[in-house]
Amino acid sequence: MVKKLKRSARLVDMTQYLLNRPHTLISLTSFAERYQSAKSSISEDLAIIKEVFEEQGIGELQTLAGAAGGVRYIPVCDKARAYEHIQKICRELEHPDRLLPGGYLYMTDLLGQPALMREIGRMFASAFADRPIDVIMTVETKGIPLAFVTAQFLNLPVVIVRRDHKVTEGSAVSINYVSGSSKRIQTMSLARRALKEESRVLIIDDFMKAGGTIQGMMDLLHEFRAHVAGVGVFVEFGGLNTSERLLQDYVSLARLTEVDTKTRQISVQPGNFFS
Amino acid sequence: MVKKLKRSARLVDMTQYLLNRPHTLISLTSFAERYQSAKSSISEDLAIIKEVFEEQGIGELQTLAGAAGGVRYIPVCDKARAYEHIQKICRELEHPDRLLPGGYLYMTDLLGQPALMREIGRMFASAFADRPIDVIMTVETKGIPLAFVTAQFLNLPVVIVRRDHKVTEGSAVSINYVSGSSKRIQTMSLARRALKEESRVLIIDDFMKAGGTIQGMMDLLHEFRAHVAGVGVFVEFGGLNTSERLLQDYVSLARLTEVDTKTRQISVQPGNFFS
Repeated sequence: MVKKLKRSARLVDMTQYLLNRPHTLISLTSFAERYQSAKSSISEDLAIIKEVFEEQGIGELQTLAGAAGGVRYIPVCDKARAYEHIQKICRELEHPDRLLPGGYLYMTDLLGQPALMREIGRMFASAFADRPIDVIMTVETKGIPLAFVTAQFLNLPVVIVRRDHKVTEGSAVSINYVSGSSKRIQTMSLARRALKEESRVLIIDDFMKAGGTIQGMMDLLHEFRAHVAGVGVFVEFGGLNTSERLLQDYVSLARLTEVDTKTRQISVQPGNFFS
Repeated sequence: MVKKLKRSARLVDMTQYLLNRPHTLISLTSFAERYQSAKSSISEDLAIIKEVFEEQGIGELQTLAGAAGGVRYIPVCDKARAYEHIQKICRELEHPDRLLPGGYLYMTDLLGQPALMREIGRMFASAFADRPIDVIMTVETKGIPLAFVTAQFLNLPVVIVRRDHKVTEGSAVSINYVSGSSKRIQTMSLARRALKEESRVLIIDDFMKAGGTIQGMMDLLHEFRAHVAGVGVFVEFGGLNTSERLLQDYVSLARLTEVDTKTRQISVQPGNFFS
């Protein structure tokens, strides 16, 4: 409980309170007690916040009526603004200096920018806002920042699949999988205690070529009797035809459509999230 | 620019705007233009926000007077609340089930909880708020969530040191180091383009025993002609005497003081951040 506040101060506090608790139902009663205010005043405050959040493309405030009612902040992204953001990211990714041997793209610097990651996380959170999800899964290393910002917006825990089995993880389940693009056999493992049976899991990763790594994560989920609730990738490699792709149902934010290692021409377009 | 708003709506928007831009100077002029309001009104709004932020232990609003003046949101943690949080985390870490072979503690689940990570990130951001820092560095894997939440609050980029050299990183600098506790020689590497010369670097990691891994990161920084601006660890192993510790100057949030593998007794206390 905070000391009795004027409406102006209450609005500031409610805004920060909601922003820090996405996808969490907060009862009007708890707000009324926190501010020692009438529920009718709280409702008026929420109407103001709702309007600003929608206007600014921050998200929705869902209000649930009744005794068990309350308010829930659902972060969503404004598609038009998100499209502007992704266009900028695409242009950034097309810089010839990013081209690495083997036709890979250097994008670690982008994944290290918290403000940019927040935009990306907001897009993923928006894409999967309506699905029932218990946990977000990614594989080390570059997917971790993406999984975390998405988890922040969806208010979900993150589990990280390791490329090898670490002593600090305790007993683990390991599987072998074939990387779709390199055709090499690799191993990934997940701590036994990291995931409950029947969990609904959103898989997030930074890059997908044929989808072998994500298929590996799906196989791992099968071992845990867990379910795939969705797949989101930051950049997909778009130069494959459907038969070469191991995965059909996923959300991509950007699509690498062309990499010419001779002319150093790279082309990146918005992904299927925008179509 | 947003459409002209009433004070109430303006307060909501300014709150979210500031929260999303920590450690960023925002001029009164830009706020005045954004809301088509007089600077005097903006100043009054900021005074209200400042009071709530301080009251709620969210952070400080630093106002800079003059033509180049403006306002800057500095996330800080309220030490008393942080102490309560860390006490809860310590009790959580003391659970006998966390004990792994070799006296290690399972704490991956905690590192996967975004809300908890936010509290931790706020503590680190608070501890290092006054130091000039250009970038935050960590080593894969478990330090990454910590580095990111800290980076969000400090508005800084993150670079991730890899345990091996990946093709997706381009040319890299590798060093060998001796893990202080296991005495094994290990390798870590950082992409050449990840760090500019003379960068001031804050090192963040999840666990420190003797400090060999962090010493390795310092050696790596030396190769980049970069400087250590600070070291923050979530949990330090407190069972060493000073001569065994490779590092003296660091901030720890918790300290593992006892691990008895026979009785499964674990004792964790608040770290030096609180003393």
